[in-house]
Amino acid sequence: MRIYMGLFAQQHRGQESAGITVTDGEMLTSHVGMGLVSEVFSPEILAGLRGKGGIGHNRYSTTGSSRCCNAQPLLEEYIGGQVAVAHNGNLINANVLRNHYESRGHIFHTSTDTEVIIHLLAAHHLSKSDPLVEALQHLQGAYSLLFLFNDRIEAARDPWGWRPLVLGKTEEGYDCVASETVALDVIGARFVREVEPGEVVTINDQGVQTRRFADHQRPAHCIFEHIYFANPSSKLFGQTVQLVRERLGEKMAAESPVDADYVIPMPDSGRSAAMGYARASGIELREGIVPNRYVGRTFIQPTQRQRDSAVQLKLNAVSEIIAGKRIVVVDDSIVRGTTTRGKMVQLRKAGAKEIHLRISCPPIRHACYFGIDFPDPSKLIATDRTVDQIRQYLGVDSLHYLSLEGMLSCVNRPADHYCTACFNGDYRIEVERPVTKLGLERHQLRIFN
Amino acid sequence: MRIYMGLFAQQHRGQESAGITVTDGEMLTSHVGMGLVSEVFSPEILAGLRGKGGIGHNRYSTTGSSRCCNAQPLLEEYIGGQVAVAHNGNLINANVLRNHYESRGHIFHTSTDTEVIIHLLAAHHLSKSDPLVEALQHLQGAYSLLFLFNDRIEAARDPWGWRPLVLGKTEEGYDCVASETVALDVIGARFVREVEPGEVVTINDQGVQTRRFADHQRPAHCIFEHIYFANPSSKLFGQTVQLVRERLGEKMAAESPVDADYVIPMPDSGRSAAMGYARASGIELREGIVPNRYVGRTFIQPTQRQRDSAVQLKLNAVSEIIAGKRIVVVDDSIVRGTTTRGKMVQLRKAGAKEIHLRISCPPIRHACYFGIDFPDPSKLIATDRTVDQIRQYLGVDSLHYLSLEGMLSCVNRPADHYCTACFNGDYRIEVERPVTKLGLERHQLRIFN
Amino acid sequence: MRIYMGLFAQQHRGQESAGITVTDGEMLTSHVGMGLVSEVFSPEILAGLRGKGGIGHNRYSTTGSSRCCNAQPLLEEYIGGQVAVAHNGNLINANVLRNHYESRGHIFHTSTDTEVIIHLLAAHHLSKSDPLVEALQHLQGAYSLLFLFNDRIEAARDPWGWRPLVLGKTEEGYDCVASETVALDVIGARFVREVEPGEVVTINDQGVQTRRFADHQRPAHCIFEHIYFANPSSKLFGQTVQLVRERLGEKMAAESPVDADYVIPMPDSGRSAAMGYARASGIELREGIVPNRYVGRTFIQPTQRQRDSAVQLKLNAVSEIIAGKRIVVVDDSIVRGTTTRGKMVQLRKAGAKEIHLRISCPPIRHACYFGIDFPDPSKLIATDRTVDQIRQYLGVDSLHYLSLEGMLSCVNRPADHYCTACFNGDYRIEVERPVTKLGLERHQLRIFN
Amino acid sequence: MRIYMGLFAQQHRGQESAGITVTDGEMLTSHVGMGLVSEVFSPEILAGLRGKGGIGHNRYSTTGSSRCCNAQPLLEEYIGGQVAVAHNGNLINANVLRNHYESRGHIFHTSTDTEVIIHLLAAHHLSKSDPLVEALQHLQGAYSLLFLFNDRIEAARDPWGWRPLVLGKTEEGYDCVASETVALDVIGARFVREVEPGEVVTINDQGVQTRRFADHQRPAHCIFEHIYFANPSSKLFGQTVQLVRERLGEKMAAESPVDADYVIPMPDSGRSAAMGYARASGIELREGIVPNRYVGRTFIQPTQRQRDSAVQLKLNAVSEIIAGKRIVVVDDSIVRGTTTRGKMVQLRKAGAKEIHLRISCPPIRHACYFGIDFPDPSKLIATDRTVDQIRQYLGVDSLHYLSLEGMLSCVNRPADHYCTACFNGDYRIEVERPVTKLGLERHQLRIFN
Repeated sequence: MRIYMGLFAQQHRGQESAGITVTDGEMLTSHVGMGLVSEVFSPEILAGLRGKGGIGHNRYSTTGSSRCCNAQPLLEEYIGGQVAVAHNGNLINANVLRNHYESRGHIFHTSTDTEVIIHLLAAHHLSKSDPLVEALQHLQGAYSLLFLFNDRIEAARDPWGWRPLVLGKTEEGYDCVASETVALDVIGARFVREVEPGEVVTINDQGVQTRRFADHQRPAHCIFEHIYFANPSSKLFGQTVQLVRERLGEKMAAESPVDADYVIPMPDSGRSAAMGYARASGIELREGIVPNRYVGRTFIQPTQRQRDSAVQLKLNAVSEIIAGKRIVVVDDSIVRGTTTRGKMVQLRKAGAKEIHLRISCPPIRHACYFGIDFPDPSKLIATDRTVDQIRQYLGVDSLHYLSLEGMLSCVNRPADHYCTACFNGDYRIEVERPVTKLGLERHQLRIFN
Repeated sequence: MRIYMGLFAQQHRGQESAGITVTDGEMLTSHVGMGLVSEVFSPEILAGLRGKGGIGHNRYSTTGSSRCCNAQPLLEEYIGGQVAVAHNGNLINANVLRNHYESRGHIFHTSTDTEVIIHLLAAHHLSKSDPLVEALQHLQGAYSLLFLFNDRIEAARDPWGWRPLVLGKTEEGYDCVASETVALDVIGARFVREVEPGEVVTINDQGVQTRRFADHQRPAHCIFEHIYFANPSSKLFGQTVQLVRERLGEKMAAESPVDADYVIPMPDSGRSAAMGYARASGIELREGIVPNRYVGRTFIQPTQRQRDSAVQLKLNAVSEIIAGKRIVVVDDSIVRGTTTRGKMVQLRKAGAKEIHLRISCPPIRHACYFGIDFPDPSKLIATDRTVDQIRQYLGVDSLHYLSLEGMLSCVNRPADHYCTACFNGDYRIEVERPVTKLGLERHQLRIFN
Repeated sequence: MRIYMGLFAQQHRGQESAGITVTDGEMLTSHVGMGLVSEVFSPEILAGLRGKGGIGHNRYSTTGSSRCCNAQPLLEEYIGGQVAVAHNGNLINANVLRNHYESRGHIFHTSTDTEVIIHLLAAHHLSKSDPLVEALQHLQGAYSLLFLFNDRIEAARDPWGWRPLVLGKTEEGYDCVASETVALDVIGARFVREVEPGEVVTINDQGVQTRRFADHQRPAHCIFEHIYFANPSSKLFGQTVQLVRERLGEKMAAESPVDADYVIPMPDSGRSAAMGYARASGIELREGIVPNRYVGRTFIQPTQRQRDSAVQLKLNAVSEIIAGKRIVVVDDSIVRGTTTRGKMVQLRKAGAKEIHLRISCPPIRHACYFGIDFPDPSKLIATDRTVDQIRQYLGVDSLHYLSLEGMLSCVNRPADHYCTACFNGDYRIEVERPVTKLGLERHQLRIFN
Repeated sequence: MRIYMGLFAQQHRGQESAGITVTDGEMLTSHVGMGLVSEVFSPEILAGLRGKGGIGHNRYSTTGSSRCCNAQPLLEEYIGGQVAVAHNGNLINANVLRNHYESRGHIFHTSTDTEVIIHLLAAHHLSKSDPLVEALQHLQGAYSLLFLFNDRIEAARDPWGWRPLVLGKTEEGYDCVASETVALDVIGARFVREVEPGEVVTINDQGVQTRRFADHQRPAHCIFEHIYFANPSSKLFGQTVQLVRERLGEKMAAESPVDADYVIPMPDSGRSAAMGYARASGIELREGIVPNRYVGRTFIQPTQRQRDSAVQLKLNAVSEIIAGKRIVVVDDSIVRGTTTRGKMVQLRKAGAKEIHLRISCPPIRHACYFGIDFPDPSKLIATDRTVDQIRQYLGVDSLHYLSLEGMLSCVNRPADHYCTACFNGDYRIEVERPVTKLGLERHQLRIFN
């Protein structure tokens, strides 16, 4: 139940599939399925997943097909016995490793980059020192990994710390580990510390032990976790997300002041930054856009000619607030631009006199090879457009993206401790392009007694 | 598709069942089912519901069993042919009428108060003047009704105007009618006017005709629609809901100022009022509570000992904002009090130094017989407790309910044009108690060519 | 559970929908659904249907839409309280009665002929003598009816005895009633007697009481129950179905001998008659056609050009038995002729040298208004074709239909005690055509403590 | 569609899961799922499985969990590209091979014996001669295998020919291969020949090529395919199953004559043998037991005290035929004995005066390691009971099992060309016990253009 609640709290990190694997000390039992946590697990299924420890996973992926067998945790048997792996991040040398093992006669049954990790583990099984450490040393890229063996969990984080991974302790004294602190909160566990980049943590009946598998590196924390991906109430890379987002809004107000009547947050993504913008600018905050909470995945898409209605179904502008006003609309980011454009059209229809759009990060112009599933750069609106061209496309009166420096001034670790590659193409480790993305895996949580 | 989108936009008015009935000019076709609009209708089902006009309904009910046959529109055949009815409101003389017809040999197959309306219609079928008008004159209580006949829609609203009902016109020139203007918005229709209390409107191939079935009365608009029930972006009884709610917050700040660090809205119900409170008080607004958007109805409830986690799953307090602070928490209403208490416990755990709870309406102490589904008064926390007792129960430092006068000062029609019976027991029409509630029916929408 | 098992055993009488209503002495509880008994009821649903007595129903219908609200038992409330009705048969004066009640202001919510029965019951509620008897006296047509009231079951059978209805007693002493004795068998009840035509039987805590509502008539038992519809192991109109069918086969052998190598039964419908034919003719019986038991309703139909395969999927001819042989194929009846033709094509492909088709009833040429759902006479192959034309259409070497006299010689009641209207148009009661069939309802079962 | 129909026709070989993999010449696409063919595939899914060739599989298994990932065809990627495998049979050296590969660092994700075959294939990929042939030479046990590569199908049958595998050709000229000829029949293909034991057949754009991977052995055809497993209309090991079964019945009549009134077949398993028994003995055949065709898998099991009813639901004895008679009941085999006992109890209740049970094979006393899923020998009724003890347990007047010699006299290949290990423990290849059965896989079919 704890794993279930933890996955539930981290549902925002992946909605494609969910899974839980538990151990009773002798055997691993697993259940995975396509869909949301609340859809994949029934009370009967959860009842069959009792054990002394376990791991779970929410997956979000566009590459790899929607095959059920790509769902995680990935449960395999090798000479060391059974092992289940949950993987958040993306390996950039998965193809090289896969080719290596295929050439030695190994076979693969998923299209994920996670499967090679188990082959590495099996290959180093007879190592005299530490098979897991040796296996990890072959991995290149972003990964927060949870391994479940019969008698223990091993939690590892890549040497650059791209993705978050935190340790907690429940009131009853169980040690646990999760992607985000929000998962600790819901199970009533307190945050102990981050798993450090390059660290492996073992959790078993004896408690928590630690060892390192890599030297300290300059970190490359994914700043987009703060901008968009993580839960606002989580504490990430040493800071609470909500506070960072408010600061981003304040910074925007300083960088790009405007004479306007209201600040309007884009629900729910722009809410925190809008609050910061309003506070710093002194412009009144108004809830000018109302979301429909019942839009579900089974919703029937209207036909092409009813497309404007589609955005309308998700968001409704309050014309009595907006009509005739000069408004500052605050959102977190623009990816393809089509949805944003639909929203701007709607605000115009509601009578907005001037629309000043403020985005709390720089233009996204480069691919991410480290775990955020952006579309191909050719589909990013900012790739080959100037800000003014984007402004025209969106039909707004002014458009400001927060500057890279501005953004980095809102987080409290040194600027070069973050990965900002999607904004400036500055990849921390060399990526041979094209990397065929094998699938992006997200999030883990575990409890161990 | 328009009816579908309209129902979808009004999903907040009822989640138990949904239905659509259409006419092709010769026959009515219907589909109803338990669940959300997006669950009840598939593309195949919608494709089978084409016609020249139709009506739809979202139902929310606690009385009447969850039998599929209680779902609306209620489709019946009588001497006048087929008719489908969608009913928002609650009749207080349904039992009297039902007994009358049963004693004349009529039979009933639902437990809803709506079914008697069709018996009335059948009884007056041979009336020389106007069968529908004569039928409506026998109804006591709150009702916004849509009747679908083969050749027309008739939309009627009770003489007191308890529930909203609005006329619109699409860009293509189709007339339509809905409970809330938000339904007009999503189908790209403009708001024309309210259906007046005591008015019947006919929509058919010739357009819109009107007639009255009752003299003008002093209205009894349900003020709880503004407080809680309606969509914030809807225009209701002459005012946009969102603006009324902000004003309620401002009024609370005036009635009950407090020295505090932050105003924290309870998401999503207290958001508008909190904004008003912050604006009027000058206290900074902070997003201190983060909701989990993925809580669905299939979510597995934790066991009793994990109950605190349940609230935790839905809302997560941002301790870094709240810890050590004096906070004003703004919400719209308190019904049973248990959920509110859970939230307050959570805020304390997150470190709140002082909690000042502000509720944007007076204490709810009386039953509603006119369409809002409050629990039995014995289960309302305010029925036999003073405000201070409630404050102690909730564990907050101060608690203020907006005064009746304060509340009424925020709406722009005369104070005695609203029904406030749930707050002060002042029922506009006499209710012989106990009224066995036969079921509360909600919301309609229709389009006609 | 007994009702469930009884319905299950009578699944052959109706596969469109199924339902059970029970009483706990104070209130009726019902569950109905579309589909097979095993699909409609889950263990949870059955657990919620406990009571001291109850009735069930399998429905098969082509008229009336597949609306869930047409499923039976039909549960209604009238001045006498709640009543549920399960109806097997077809009323021919349902339209007249419906018009009568509609003109008096009554409303209808199903398209079934069953609903008028409850209106009749309500109309005679204040009768000093016996409301149920008075209501039944207005019905014209075929009906075996079960009524469930809070305190009793009433079982009635039309004065002509068209459809079967039998009384049983379980080992524990519970009285029960069902369409066929096979339902008694599965619940371990013994057959007591038939409910007589024109009789009403009351089952309650005091046991079984009887009264008559009509004088004795010359019976009109549906002979097609013996030919095709009933379960072979049931005892019907005083005879076991299986034995009657064997006798039909023997009679065919006498009427239409043929020089052949093998008798081949059409599985499963012609099996009993084939055995009789083989026995009487001395020709060897061979299983030359093998059915596929896994053909389900969700089976995907092949495209038009793969139509021959469709029959092939259901039946496979054993060419090693059939090739080069002169075979007598025995089946129970031919309706449209298309399926039979497909089977004959297949036998030819398998190498049959001569095919002699023997059908154990006369050609079906007239509509049934009393409960068997034949297609419109214009679609019956025999309506306007001679036997030789049919033989040519089917592509067989000889074709013999059992004569009317031959058929009637196989049952042991006087020939004029059976309804043979579908064969010779001799309707026992006058039917004003066109009768709009309102829906054919099938089968009931009940248990009472 | 052809593969679908072929799987459908062979549904009797496995009901646990079903799957189809197709190739478009460049990539393999697969869909597998738990349940019957008609449940796993929808028209939409089939539409997505078009290609120039493909294979399918019905699986029946008790070992290996019901994990979806055990369903076949097993689709993997190795250095040679993608390959899908469907396996009918059981390998006895799977564990040895699996240990070998695990010790070399390979990983496994299913609990089936099929997965090792792909590891073997990958291991011999660089072989200069013929990787597939080399891989097959390592397999011990029973297997009919279909491999799907992008450009071809390879069909292989073990050197002993335990399981059937046949080649066919459709009217359009497509080559195809299937477990049973019934699959060829339904797609309108004619039987060409058996794939020979020790043969690999390649089907591609150029047609059919053949090669051998093993020398000719004395065959070990599974005689239980004829007794029970195969479809009666299939031609197997050179004989039509139906005819063999009739002969088994005749032989029983010769071995164990009895003075009786009727021969009663146990539907549907004993039908063919009963016909043979009746023919040879001159005793009249009667349909004394009627099956209920609607027993499905979702049927709710009655509670313990209603167990007799459970058998009753599936079969109903016709007491009017059986009562007071001396009957010979013919069935194909007895495994655990509990079901048979239930049937005998029912026949006694129906009034049978004497019951003479005749079983068309010898007592089953040994495990099968070659593809038939018998329970553990400790659960076989015949393992440690004499025939007379079994007779007493079943409560019958006489019991005769067909002798081994009698059984073998009914098939037309030399007696030592069949595997009869389950009857006499004479295993053709040495089995080191205990063999942990990794899962029994069944049946394949394929079409190639």
